Amino acid sequence: MTFSSKLIEKAVEAFATLPGIGRKTALRLVLHLLKQDKLVTEQFAAALVSMREGIRDCRICHNLADEELCQICADQRRDRSLVCVVESIRDLMAIEDTGQYRGLYHVLGGIISPIEGIGPGELNIDSLTERVQEGSIKEVIMAISPTIEGETTVYYISKKLQESGVLVSAIARGVAFGGDLEYADELTLGRSIVARIPYGR
Amino acid sequence: MTFSSKLIEKAVEAFATLPGIGRKTALRLVLHLLKQDKLVTEQFAAALVSMREGIRDCRICHNLADEELCQICADQRRDRSLVCVVESIRDLMAIEDTGQYRGLYHVLGGIISPIEGIGPGELNIDSLTERVQEGSIKEVIMAISPTIEGETTVYYISKKLQESGVLVSAIARGVAFGGDLEYADELTLGRSIVARIPYGR
Repeated sequence: MTFSSKLIEKAVEAFATLPGIGRKTALRLVLHLLKQDKLVTEQFAAALVSMREGIRDCRICHNLADEELCQICADQRRDRSLVCVVESIRDLMAIEDTGQYRGLYHVLGGIISPIEGIGPGELNIDSLTERVQEGSIKEVIMAISPTIEGETTVYYISKKLQESGVLVSAIARGVAFGGDLEYADELTLGRSIVARIPYGR
Repeated sequence: MTFSSKLIEKAVEAFATLPGIGRKTALRLVLHLLKQDKLVTEQFAAALVSMREGIRDCRICHNLADEELCQICADQRRDRSLVCVVESIRDLMAIEDTGQYRGLYHVLGGIISPIEGIGPGELNIDSLTERVQEGSIKEVIMAISPTIEGETTVYYISKKLQESGVLVSAIARGVAFGGDLEYADELTLGRSIVARIPYGR
């Protein structure tokens, strides 16, 4: 791609460093900004900079926060006896989007993965055990992806929480709603039979 | 999508105003920036702002320019007797990418389109006739898409340039390289037979 402007070239390269944005898409975005008023670009840049500078780690649950506490931890209407442990902020948002959960969260910031060199020390596990030791939490729900690394992480955390006596649960696994039994994988289908639920519950 | 942070929400909405970027992609981009150093976001924002504030319209050809003249018009090694008329900066870049053209350009900024309410007055046509009247231009190459609007624009401009006596040419049309004759449209195939070229040229 031949640029006849250094300013355009730098802006295209800036966009192209973002994941999933190639140079052709980057050029389209730059030409779009050029068609708009200068103010649009200024406001766009300002929104990103103030987000990046202002965003904090929630002191309690490690969710993204604008203040010392995130909006969820600060919300007094939420059930403070329930903590849902998630791998990432994306998973937290996915659960929030269901509208089915009214407790608090704890964001691990990853899962134990010896291959990627992520041990328990890299994750927010100590702060979870400290929260549980304070005594007001009755149940810790493990909402971790059912992969080998996920299962390892769940096992490690449940062992850590064992002596506190808190109830540790895991999200239900089974055939997805609208899923076709024929196409469900063997492991999921097998578990869904073993962990069957009385009809009507 | 439920956000627990106003800062994140604003940044996601900023990205989502860009063409082809939905809210899910926008969130992915924001989370990517959060994983990087603050400096990355600052430099990204600065590149966009200085591009938008600094970019100018080349005084001669209306290409994007960092200075009064674009890099192409300022380049003394280019053939100043040839002017290639293009609809947009994207088309100019596409021709530059071929590496086959060493003349100058003239960016119209659109084509005549009564449906979209774009008349000759909205396009950079007067500045083209002025350039031609100065006398140093020998040939004007019309590199406009062969659509009805494009043909109208080419006809209008060639009429305007008629009295100056400058040679007006149009880019060759025919079957694309690597194209299969069987799948070429009738009009293109028909014209490519009528406008056949002596073999070896």
